[in-house]
Amino acid sequence: MDYALLLERFSSSVQRTWSAQRRLHAALRAAIQEGELAPGSRLLASRVLAQELGIARNSVVYAYEQLLSEGFLSSDRRGTVVNPIAQVAKQLQLPTTTLLSDFCLANRAERVMPLPVAAELTTGFAPGVPSLTDFPKALWRKSLDASWRHLTVSQLGYADAAGEPLLRAAIADYLRASRGVICDADQVIVTDGTQSSLDLCAHALADAGDKVWMETPGYVGAQIAFRSAQLNVIGITVDKDGIAPTEHDWQTHHPKFVYVTPSHQYPTGQVLSLNRRLELIQHARKHGTLLIEDDYDSEFRHGGPPLIAMQGLVPDAPVIYLGTFSKTMFPALRIAYLVLPKNLVPAMHSLVAKTSLRGRSADQICLAKFIRDGHFLTHLRRMRRLYKNRRDELVRLLQAQLGDVATVYGDTAGMHLSLCFHNTSWDDVTISEHALTLGVVVPALSHHRVGRRLHAWSGLMLGYAQVPIELMPALVEHLKSSIDWYRNEIDST
Amino acid sequence: MDYALLLERFSSSVQRTWSAQRRLHAALRAAIQEGELAPGSRLLASRVLAQELGIARNSVVYAYEQLLSEGFLSSDRRGTVVNPIAQVAKQLQLPTTTLLSDFCLANRAERVMPLPVAAELTTGFAPGVPSLTDFPKALWRKSLDASWRHLTVSQLGYADAAGEPLLRAAIADYLRASRGVICDADQVIVTDGTQSSLDLCAHALADAGDKVWMETPGYVGAQIAFRSAQLNVIGITVDKDGIAPTEHDWQTHHPKFVYVTPSHQYPTGQVLSLNRRLELIQHARKHGTLLIEDDYDSEFRHGGPPLIAMQGLVPDAPVIYLGTFSKTMFPALRIAYLVLPKNLVPAMHSLVAKTSLRGRSADQICLAKFIRDGHFLTHLRRMRRLYKNRRDELVRLLQAQLGDVATVYGDTAGMHLSLCFHNTSWDDVTISEHALTLGVVVPALSHHRVGRRLHAWSGLMLGYAQVPIELMPALVEHLKSSIDWYRNEIDST
Repeated sequence: MDYALLLERFSSSVQRTWSAQRRLHAALRAAIQEGELAPGSRLLASRVLAQELGIARNSVVYAYEQLLSEGFLSSDRRGTVVNPIAQVAKQLQLPTTTLLSDFCLANRAERVMPLPVAAELTTGFAPGVPSLTDFPKALWRKSLDASWRHLTVSQLGYADAAGEPLLRAAIADYLRASRGVICDADQVIVTDGTQSSLDLCAHALADAGDKVWMETPGYVGAQIAFRSAQLNVIGITVDKDGIAPTEHDWQTHHPKFVYVTPSHQYPTGQVLSLNRRLELIQHARKHGTLLIEDDYDSEFRHGGPPLIAMQGLVPDAPVIYLGTFSKTMFPALRIAYLVLPKNLVPAMHSLVAKTSLRGRSADQICLAKFIRDGHFLTHLRRMRRLYKNRRDELVRLLQAQLGDVATVYGDTAGMHLSLCFHNTSWDDVTISEHALTLGVVVPALSHHRVGRRLHAWSGLMLGYAQVPIELMPALVEHLKSSIDWYRNEIDST
Repeated sequence: MDYALLLERFSSSVQRTWSAQRRLHAALRAAIQEGELAPGSRLLASRVLAQELGIARNSVVYAYEQLLSEGFLSSDRRGTVVNPIAQVAKQLQLPTTTLLSDFCLANRAERVMPLPVAAELTTGFAPGVPSLTDFPKALWRKSLDASWRHLTVSQLGYADAAGEPLLRAAIADYLRASRGVICDADQVIVTDGTQSSLDLCAHALADAGDKVWMETPGYVGAQIAFRSAQLNVIGITVDKDGIAPTEHDWQTHHPKFVYVTPSHQYPTGQVLSLNRRLELIQHARKHGTLLIEDDYDSEFRHGGPPLIAMQGLVPDAPVIYLGTFSKTMFPALRIAYLVLPKNLVPAMHSLVAKTSLRGRSADQICLAKFIRDGHFLTHLRRMRRLYKNRRDELVRLLQAQLGDVATVYGDTAGMHLSLCFHNTSWDDVTISEHALTLGVVVPALSHHRVGRRLHAWSGLMLGYAQVPIELMPALVEHLKSSIDWYRNEIDST
């Protein structure tokens, strides 16, 4: 067999950037699989082949060794021989791509709805992104290195499925003091992010087909988690005071749990009124329903009457409280948490111990110390000031430029507000898509519709946390031109 | 109202270790909720109350501020007043714990089976634990710090849902060279661990009620993932050559996918024979079934004929290949991966982009460089030598001490072997439980039974990777005494 020809012919079909040894390995393997190198045939000695091909002998040795370890060759005292394995494999080399392409995702995977905005879009006004330039990266890096320095050998292994005790205690202390959450460390479970928290709730608290409620418009991530768990998701309309289930809803759509964002409704930004909160708790108790309170960005309060977390409103509230460090620290950290009612603690602990193997002790210990040493609150305080200034400027610009057609809602807390059109028949999706072509990321409230029930919102979400004040005028200008374009469009039809 | 009495009475019911401010805050809150401090009542000035209670004024100020921010108090020009909120909340303070305790986990969560061995048991011979003392922690720490030093601001945000491109390329290169896996970087998806990989496969590839196959005995973690996704899990018996589905199985139990551990069957440790692999691929193609190949610890080969990964046996094999860095690096790292068939890439990428928000760029970039710089292979080579020595010693001891009643299987690769009793009617679970009381962790093969189908294995799993040779004689001695105890028990009945 002419190896040089083999190599040459083969090389034309692959990247020229491959190293000699990789090309030789692949060429020999293909030749064996194609039957050009028949079972039992003996390969040239590596020294000879290297000379013949004009490549380093090591490259040949490497290629042979790899084929040996893959089972295509075997070696005896006299050299290297082609194994019969390849011949059998050859029979399987039928036109298979067509067969395999028949395999597609499961129905439930195909049904997962797209996100309103691609996760990689982080320019103004993409919601949910904190100001990363203002995160004290150097300080975090130093803390992390210290955490690694003190890490014990056993902390390289699997960790407590509920999270590092130190971090759970720090989270409980922080939540008691800052959010009025009534909890001890053992009620806290650390997760990889709110999406994981939601997946856990969906699978732990409801069976396939069970009814659950969310707000409409509502958080798409929650909808994805619940639908992936095959729950029957019912959207309950959000009005200006937040989620507003009727007595009829409670009677006919008895939910296993209700997912709510009371501190800063996602996406509208409205705060759930105190009366509604108490009603919700009362109904939940009466019907044996759990409330899942997602408090994703309530750390940032810019005005208005402060409201304690629903979880802490009454003792033993039937509430699972969700929080995350993605907004207060940085998203890449991937640490979030849930706070369980006391009587669910044993069952949920045993469940997470069985369903997830956990680690990342260094990250969690580092975060615990970051909180304990006051760095977390210092950072929060700085961001609160920064975000409030950005909000103030954005509200001013929006009212000046667009006050005649839209009203700002949901700006008393958090990292985004909503700009709601006075004419609720406006197609916010069309406006959102047009704005995107101008480089302005403003997801439509209608992108967040849950189920078939109508909601009376037409508007856009504007995240301002990561947008410097000096960039805002141009962005609002672009947004205005999209809205002007839309008004022209509807006027002309 | 006598605040000192209030505080004193309240303090008796809580931990004495609480700070003055925390006790005062909790006591006032309880008093407001109980109605002892009625709505509209005015609190003492902080200075006065501090004096009265003999605590620092700052503690009082802190407690008041917290109650203000929680909405229990409000302040006007003349001082601090109790809000009506509490009164409404009071109505909800019925005997509620009984109501809430009615809420239990969903049926599917209750049905999750326990693990054969608690995850925190890592002493000899707990399987699945690498030798953590031998991990180059200092080198990793240095690399991680460098990775953080070079991290850009945008890398603090959400990352590519499929993982850092640099890491995916490093994994693909490694798998091609070391495991004969045929893949490019874009086929690789990085996950938080094999459990996440399995959850993803279960939800993406099959709908609730769909039949899937696994080996019996088989990996409990996979069974948990599949059952949590409400799949119909069918156990296919493993014989000495690995999984052995009959033609009847293929006809009657047509599976959506087959989960297999061909390189080192979990738990028996047997290697799936080449013929069985080719048959499996052939059948999978014929029936449009996917194979999920979990190659969890095949990096460690100690002897026997080397076998390439099933994924690389033929081009375009209908295989999803799973790997993890938990065994080769350390479990706390929480990085694993799957390699998709080319034609599933677009659909799976779009699915993970929608269902999971990802980050941890620093960790992933660090691991990519650790691989690229050769540290990973160096570490693997060292561990291979170490584990081989440990295996040799363990096999020697087992044969010497227990060779009359049991045979060692599955010791040609990986980090554990199985000790199979000649008398397959022995109750391996009872022996395993007895050994645990002597401090020896040896999960029974019957702990890994899947479904109702019988398997002909009675034996124990012994992980040796993390057990120093000098500790082995005592452990095997203990194990022997458990077996002796069991023989006495059955003889006497």
